[in-house]
Amino acid sequence: MISSTSNKKITEITELQNKSKARREKGLYIIEGRKLFLEAPVDDIVEAYVEERIWDSPDTVLKDKLKKVKAESVSTEVMKKMCDTKTPQGILAVLKTPKYALEDMIKNENVKPLLLIIEELQDPGNLGTLLRTGEGAGVTGIILSPGTVDIYNPKVIRGSMGSIFRMPVCQVDNLDSAINRIKSEGIKVYAAHLKGEKFHDEFDYATGTAFLIGNEGNGLTQHTADQADCYVRIPMEGKVESLNAAIAGTLLIYEANRQRRRESERK
Amino acid sequence: MISSTSNKKITEITELQNKSKARREKGLYIIEGRKLFLEAPVDDIVEAYVEERIWDSPDTVLKDKLKKVKAESVSTEVMKKMCDTKTPQGILAVLKTPKYALEDMIKNENVKPLLLIIEELQDPGNLGTLLRTGEGAGVTGIILSPGTVDIYNPKVIRGSMGSIFRMPVCQVDNLDSAINRIKSEGIKVYAAHLKGEKFHDEFDYATGTAFLIGNEGNGLTQHTADQADCYVRIPMEGKVESLNAAIAGTLLIYEANRQRRRESERK
Repeated sequence: MISSTSNKKITEITELQNKSKARREKGLYIIEGRKLFLEAPVDDIVEAYVEERIWDSPDTVLKDKLKKVKAESVSTEVMKKMCDTKTPQGILAVLKTPKYALEDMIKNENVKPLLLIIEELQDPGNLGTLLRTGEGAGVTGIILSPGTVDIYNPKVIRGSMGSIFRMPVCQVDNLDSAINRIKSEGIKVYAAHLKGEKFHDEFDYATGTAFLIGNEGNGLTQHTADQADCYVRIPMEGKVESLNAAIAGTLLIYEANRQRRRESERK
Repeated sequence: MISSTSNKKITEITELQNKSKARREKGLYIIEGRKLFLEAPVDDIVEAYVEERIWDSPDTVLKDKLKKVKAESVSTEVMKKMCDTKTPQGILAVLKTPKYALEDMIKNENVKPLLLIIEELQDPGNLGTLLRTGEGAGVTGIILSPGTVDIYNPKVIRGSMGSIFRMPVCQVDNLDSAINRIKSEGIKVYAAHLKGEKFHDEFDYATGTAFLIGNEGNGLTQHTADQADCYVRIPMEGKVESLNAAIAGTLLIYEANRQRRRESERK
């Protein structure tokens, strides 16, 4: 059992929790808590750390999963040190970051792509929400600009409620090239923009579709918005000047979901 | 100029920032920052506190508004003490809490009511988002259960982005009676529920409509869900079990918005 908070492994985990650079370099990330651990793909789990009390608990579901991975006991104090949450649930795991390629997202023969292209989003809660809601709406992939908050930030992971394990996400080095590549496959790219002349629910999203979502404070850069095939406007009544980025994204992807459901009912 | 952080007024403001009980008893709340101050109704502003540097700034718009209200100078240290935000913008104001009656929300002869009835929502960010998005979607009033986070919590105010000044909100003592009263006026009450047999976009929201939104972790209590006229289900693909409360609310009210826009186009 590890009972020293200065143990080298513990220091490494703290670093993976706090630094996106460390996560990127090592290709690893951290999840916390029973629910996420149970949902995590066994093959991605490098190692799990559990408090002594978990082994003594009658939680057979959890213990069955622990048997399938490399697991190590730690003291309560060490667990607390490793965790990002204030009230640790007694289990934490180190996972390999999966690699998704843009090419796989745009060339899916079974499904019409429904993509989110995210530029410079900063709030991890918003990104986590977009992962979770994206899976719900049937989004097939998420593309992140270089300056967007790290997908393996602990708050993104918590906000995603497990969708982090299932949603293909790739952070690209160059957003312009990615958008061009997406357009070259016949996927239509829409930018939510106040200058849009038509509302977001007046377009047809039944074929390959990508929505551009910008930064919380400033929206999309004009440079990126200019690369869209169309501007779409989300109707806003009263004196509302803009919507939260995750809210705007939700409305766009669920409008696509609505249209695609209608389409499949007709078939 | 107030330069002592132990000044009685300053202590009162700190209390109004931190305690919903103090806000309720005094019928007052606090806003921070230039943008909110400029949007705040002059008649509701009891007093404004400004850092010296604001008077010396060339910000004539801000200074014009300050001339219309009772304003007092404070030192930078005092401003920091009063503010809930980490980086104060140099201006804070005390406002009277407006009083909205449930009766006014349900008997509006000019508009078909579009109400949100919120049960036990805890996250101030979610409530702020629902205020902002609610105004955008044309919500005519928000009803809060007794246990819902206080509407004048500083984080709700910030999240609302000014909609706090424009959205009629009332916290009721008894949610059951409020729902009964709403139904007695012919307003249909819908509960987002996993057991809903039809999707949320298969109902007609062109007439008076109210949506029940529950707590982040547990959703609606069964007791409250039972009082709805219908359950509606938000489609979810993948392994998503639920959506964030603000996200679910957004999808419901914007579906009503979509239908009402279509309706008014036909006329």
